[in-house]
Amino acid sequence: MGGDLAPAAPVEGAVLFAREQPDVQVVLVGDEQRILPFLRRTWPVNLSVRHASEVVGMDEQAGASIRKKPDSSLKVCFDLVRTGEAAAVVSAGHSGAVMAGALLVLGRLPRVERPAIAALLPALEGGRCLLLDVGANIQCRPSHLAQFAVLGDAYARRVMGVARPRVAILSNGEEESKGTPLTREAAALLRQGPLHFRGYLEGKDLFSGQAEVIVTDGFTGNLVLKAAEGTALAVAGLLRSAVYKAGLSEKLGAVLLKPTLAGLRRVVDYAEVGGAPLLGIAGVAVVAHGRSNPKAVKNALKAALTTARSGLNDELVRDMALTEEWLPPRRRGKGATGQALSE
Amino acid sequence: MGGDLAPAAPVEGAVLFAREQPDVQVVLVGDEQRILPFLRRTWPVNLSVRHASEVVGMDEQAGASIRKKPDSSLKVCFDLVRTGEAAAVVSAGHSGAVMAGALLVLGRLPRVERPAIAALLPALEGGRCLLLDVGANIQCRPSHLAQFAVLGDAYARRVMGVARPRVAILSNGEEESKGTPLTREAAALLRQGPLHFRGYLEGKDLFSGQAEVIVTDGFTGNLVLKAAEGTALAVAGLLRSAVYKAGLSEKLGAVLLKPTLAGLRRVVDYAEVGGAPLLGIAGVAVVAHGRSNPKAVKNALKAALTTARSGLNDELVRDMALTEEWLPPRRRGKGATGQALSE
Repeated sequence: MGGDLAPAAPVEGAVLFAREQPDVQVVLVGDEQRILPFLRRTWPVNLSVRHASEVVGMDEQAGASIRKKPDSSLKVCFDLVRTGEAAAVVSAGHSGAVMAGALLVLGRLPRVERPAIAALLPALEGGRCLLLDVGANIQCRPSHLAQFAVLGDAYARRVMGVARPRVAILSNGEEESKGTPLTREAAALLRQGPLHFRGYLEGKDLFSGQAEVIVTDGFTGNLVLKAAEGTALAVAGLLRSAVYKAGLSEKLGAVLLKPTLAGLRRVVDYAEVGGAPLLGIAGVAVVAHGRSNPKAVKNALKAALTTARSGLNDELVRDMALTEEWLPPRRRGKGATGQALSE
Repeated sequence: MGGDLAPAAPVEGAVLFAREQPDVQVVLVGDEQRILPFLRRTWPVNLSVRHASEVVGMDEQAGASIRKKPDSSLKVCFDLVRTGEAAAVVSAGHSGAVMAGALLVLGRLPRVERPAIAALLPALEGGRCLLLDVGANIQCRPSHLAQFAVLGDAYARRVMGVARPRVAILSNGEEESKGTPLTREAAALLRQGPLHFRGYLEGKDLFSGQAEVIVTDGFTGNLVLKAAEGTALAVAGLLRSAVYKAGLSEKLGAVLLKPTLAGLRRVVDYAEVGGAPLLGIAGVAVVAHGRSNPKAVKNALKAALTTARSGLNDELVRDMALTEEWLPPRRRGKGATGQALSE
């Protein structure tokens, strides 16, 4: 039920995915009355519908909405994972509510202080880069950033297939003297740890392929991701008007516009690269972009399947246990759940 | 002597400017031996050279470099302003060193806690938007952000000619509940003040023209500006390869590329829009982009001239005095100079 184009786009994306993956069971969770019309003609045998009478809206307070709406499609999704009926959740809805649902129903993996939302950015020379956190944790401590690095490193190895991911911290300059107390203390922690830590990376290098994992606090991560999106959309507008002013035929214009705009979307729209995984939760969840079309929903489902099959969370349980050797013990009484949900 | 293309580009830009403004005196400050060869054939009568034997390098610690090099071109520039021989400084060098020089030689305007570096972004629908701080103040208090708003508001009125500038705070969402304690407290201050405060603006809306002044801390501002720059450069690369793959002639390709790439530069390269003004110092200084070509240097000189003639600082002295009514008094012992210089 989530996303700007729901339920049409999520249903159609699920159908595309179910066809491509005949050995995978897909469950559509939501208002039957609104879902079924889209399924009449094209109902794959490996796709079922689970009715849920409520919907979490985009403007609702994330944590409260999950508690107040036990029969919301989002809550029911996570219940299916909790009971073992499903292996992963995909939603194009409110990312804060998805995180809240994951935390309330599934909880965190052991020792994870703050689960994160990760965005997959494409590197210009090929490959991808994981930027986290992009919005779940507005205020962070150094240990949170160090843990984001552990979460991202495991994802890059297990799901992206990078043997030895390079990890960087986003900062206002590459020199060690740059950054804030937060980034400097996080860098000091990461220099003690076993990851392949490369130091600071600047905002201009997001797409440069210099690291597979870039960590930052959720406030900065959100702003940087959205600024990249805004810039790309601005440039797309410039390009369109240049084609128009050059008096090119629509056909020739399209030849130029299509690959560039598609590239643009790859640069900015994480739905195109398979959605944004939530990392550190005791389960698998992927947030698709709110504007996801059926193809983007299908890509997010694929990402969720790959992650569920990757053994990522088993790996993370081991990796997090090893952090005891180099990360200071977690402070009690300031858990992640309350903080994340209050944001 | 500053910038990637020095001294050629600064000298040529100064010559262009001096020709356009015959009633303005331009002083080139730096190593005579390196400057004079560029002037032999084209030396406008209103352009002079002041020898300075030292240069502040891009990799030097900003505050220390100004103190250690009293005959550096940058220090001498600010000395000329201090003694009244010059009205404004333009540099394409290290922005931190320019700020340090301004603070050490000229100081701050009364009541200004933290001078800021402002970037001029173009709005897509026309007009411009001032983003500050973009790097001078890595850690900020709420009153700093509120003061940035006062600085930006005065600049927008006096220099940009906007009658009633709209002011916004950069945040991870538009709702009042979003943001950090820093942004929320700054918003509370601005709601009490006389400015036209519009609330929060998201990263995707940088170029949307929804505000003429956007304030943020220097860490976030730097990252957001650099991310926009990195994205635009990434998109320019995509566009070039689309033109190439479409098999278009170079000439036709150029017809399309030129306006788009020029637009791109306007979007990301603040040199093209006249450099980044330092606001809150007791003088006028403009930082041109490190990659500034002669035209960009000329534009920065124009911006400096416009600012010097605008009466901005007289206006700011009045505006800052009025902040006593709505901004809490400045805490003593934590002045801007030491902090800004240590960064």
